[in-house]
Amino acid sequence: MPRPRLVVIGGVAAGMSAASRARKLSSELEITVLEKGREVSYAACGIPYFLAGAVADSQDLVVYDAAFFREERNIDVRLEHEAIAIEPGRRRVLAMAPGSRPVEFPYDALIVATGAAPEVTMPGSGLAGVFTVNDLASAVRLHEWIASERPQRAVIVGSGYIGLEMAEALHVRGLEVTLLERSTELAPGFSEAIETRLRGLLQSHGVTLTMATEVVEIVGNSTGRAREVAASGGRSYLAELVILATGVLPRTDLARAAGLQIGPTGAIAVDERMQTNIAGIYAAGDCAETRHLVTGRPAYSPLGTTANKQGRVAGENAAGGNARFEGILGTLITKVFDLGLARTGLTAAEARSTGFQAEEVTIDARTHAKYLGGRTLTLTLAWDAASDLFLGCQIAGDPCAAKRIDAAAVALHARMRLPQMLHLDLAYAPPMATVWDPLLIAVNEAVKSRATKGARTGERKQ
Amino acid sequence: MPRPRLVVIGGVAAGMSAASRARKLSSELEITVLEKGREVSYAACGIPYFLAGAVADSQDLVVYDAAFFREERNIDVRLEHEAIAIEPGRRRVLAMAPGSRPVEFPYDALIVATGAAPEVTMPGSGLAGVFTVNDLASAVRLHEWIASERPQRAVIVGSGYIGLEMAEALHVRGLEVTLLERSTELAPGFSEAIETRLRGLLQSHGVTLTMATEVVEIVGNSTGRAREVAASGGRSYLAELVILATGVLPRTDLARAAGLQIGPTGAIAVDERMQTNIAGIYAAGDCAETRHLVTGRPAYSPLGTTANKQGRVAGENAAGGNARFEGILGTLITKVFDLGLARTGLTAAEARSTGFQAEEVTIDARTHAKYLGGRTLTLTLAWDAASDLFLGCQIAGDPCAAKRIDAAAVALHARMRLPQMLHLDLAYAPPMATVWDPLLIAVNEAVKSRATKGARTGERKQ
Repeated sequence: MPRPRLVVIGGVAAGMSAASRARKLSSELEITVLEKGREVSYAACGIPYFLAGAVADSQDLVVYDAAFFREERNIDVRLEHEAIAIEPGRRRVLAMAPGSRPVEFPYDALIVATGAAPEVTMPGSGLAGVFTVNDLASAVRLHEWIASERPQRAVIVGSGYIGLEMAEALHVRGLEVTLLERSTELAPGFSEAIETRLRGLLQSHGVTLTMATEVVEIVGNSTGRAREVAASGGRSYLAELVILATGVLPRTDLARAAGLQIGPTGAIAVDERMQTNIAGIYAAGDCAETRHLVTGRPAYSPLGTTANKQGRVAGENAAGGNARFEGILGTLITKVFDLGLARTGLTAAEARSTGFQAEEVTIDARTHAKYLGGRTLTLTLAWDAASDLFLGCQIAGDPCAAKRIDAAAVALHARMRLPQMLHLDLAYAPPMATVWDPLLIAVNEAVKSRATKGARTGERKQ
Repeated sequence: MPRPRLVVIGGVAAGMSAASRARKLSSELEITVLEKGREVSYAACGIPYFLAGAVADSQDLVVYDAAFFREERNIDVRLEHEAIAIEPGRRRVLAMAPGSRPVEFPYDALIVATGAAPEVTMPGSGLAGVFTVNDLASAVRLHEWIASERPQRAVIVGSGYIGLEMAEALHVRGLEVTLLERSTELAPGFSEAIETRLRGLLQSHGVTLTMATEVVEIVGNSTGRAREVAASGGRSYLAELVILATGVLPRTDLARAAGLQIGPTGAIAVDERMQTNIAGIYAAGDCAETRHLVTGRPAYSPLGTTANKQGRVAGENAAGGNARFEGILGTLITKVFDLGLARTGLTAAEARSTGFQAEEVTIDARTHAKYLGGRTLTLTLAWDAASDLFLGCQIAGDPCAAKRIDAAAVALHARMRLPQMLHLDLAYAPPMATVWDPLLIAVNEAVKSRATKGARTGERKQ
């Protein structure tokens, strides 16, 4: 009897997690990974630190190379193999290596981990000097371009966390940086108070911030190099380097063509077992949809943490297990210069748009005791006034302190209501914390504001 | 009609929180605080940092002084007023100021916040050079003694968190430090793996550690000064300075004499409203009992966080409100040299002694990405094999990273079981975290070890 075959399309976070997990559960399975790039299993989130020079060699970002997976985990990794078709009827994938004909890869189970691609639609995005930074190869090209071409001015399009991390990285590399944001919101997903703090920080580091500015075209010079960015309102910004950080879209062409169902977010629809509408075909990572645990609705959350978890679940199930991935909170952390930013769950604005009667409070507290140098931590907390349900939290403060967002994330997983959170037994010692943790201060403020409102509208307190 | 009167005995964390909270809810109430010392509302947990020289002036530890409470909060703070009797039948407290007769303080509501006192029972504890460090006055005396007497060798009796913090403080002040621990366990409440890491740290800083060593007597010289510590097994340790850090006992003399019920832990028994067995009399802080949220049993947890919360609840209720304090997890964080230590809930050993079928796993992970200098974080996780209930967690690592214990604390509050914790959406970015958070790595290990045991005993997986 032939050994059962698992094929995985895509060899970064979700794909390699899936393949590794499947191997852990089954030594029998024949596992093949088709990766179109030249690297597997690298830390894409480390790219800005490589560009800033904090990581000496791009290879330091490679967690395990293809040889490791072949030798240590008996996983047949095929680099530079681009899948070109999934044929569910024949249970096979067609893939092509450079300069060769399509090769067939039959499967008993298939995991689609095709990832996401940057949204690149504007005219001029093909000019030399225009980059995206969503994979290691593009990061290495950008790194070499900066070293050889010595650009002076950079425009970054998009102020999400990647745009912000790139602003710092390029500033550290000595460039004059302008950040262009289409919307009126800097760092979407954060409260206004935190946005204001971030705005001050960028200014203090000399990063120019231009809001509500849409790029019309990237204009090149006669040699095909980027020269300036033409934007809405007739404005233009000189730049030899343009970074497109306007977000990513799930790569779903193969999946669509094969008849896999696409969800309302535009990513591949999956159940809690990460299975698509076709039995035996799973999807995981940046190409797959998930569920938001606060709204209960389908969500798209292209992050490394989600990709690893979904990959592991898909791998376990493809190997005959029965694991489930229930969903995400959109928990995010980033560092911009010396400021840590973190969020989990919903902002009040996001929550209102999904039907909650959301309220929010923002407090400034200290990371730890003032007499030991504690610094200001800004924390915004959102809750549902109708049910007291805790909805989300955002933090700005010292980078390490921003990781405290996790306590709020666990409270969201547990679907806690504010009164349950008033007396959480959180850790205190003067060098690391305050006796009232910022989260507790915010919960107290929220309960107080709720009581005040109740009093105003004639409700009785208690 | 006379204004209702609230009397608070004790003006540190619990007492001043109670008085302030009562004032917030009622501008009517006449509030008197009787404090036997000369300071109110100071950060007792900051004492080791004052002694180490990180805090220049002991007054920096005073959060608010008596004048602030009198002027800003209309609270009548009586310093150097020691309560000597509670007379529930007459609803009054008797107190004495130095050199005066007892004064009566009638009350409508009373809050007992008499705190805790160090356990000092050994012969020789009255010698010059023998100190406890449980209040600001004793810390100032110790500080001055070190400056004027220039002791060379210190023995610290007790290796709990205060003993450990004092070991660092005295080492920084240039003393040769020996830590004597009666039991075979260093830092009770931590796993063996973390204890081993801590032991190595103390050795590397030249702190001598002597376990299973009970003090028999502190021996003085002819001028009444400590000279050496005589211990079990005939050993003795030369020391001009001896710090007693063997723990504290609740101060309950007044309460007992007044007929307040004492609980099984030796502290004053209270309900969730912090009310004692006598209506209108509340207790809060280091003199009061509480409930452990994992065991459901009465617990004694003399910590600043608990004192502040209990004080606030007692103050709210004394002012006619209806707040509740459900209990504690024993969450603790401390810093010893450059190592952060934190715990919440139960160790496996503690859990077994209260009837759980407790298991534990310990993992070494990184605080953040290796390529950005992430360092080892040791995490031990305990759970109940019978129910999968998460029971507790201990962490050793960078001080700031130790504060991640809070995520585990919230999971304990929510009474999570391991399978619910497998995919917690915790924050990741390379400078602050790893894609699999150490907590998730440990949960995965625990679930795996559980599955293995299940297989061994013939259970089916899934």
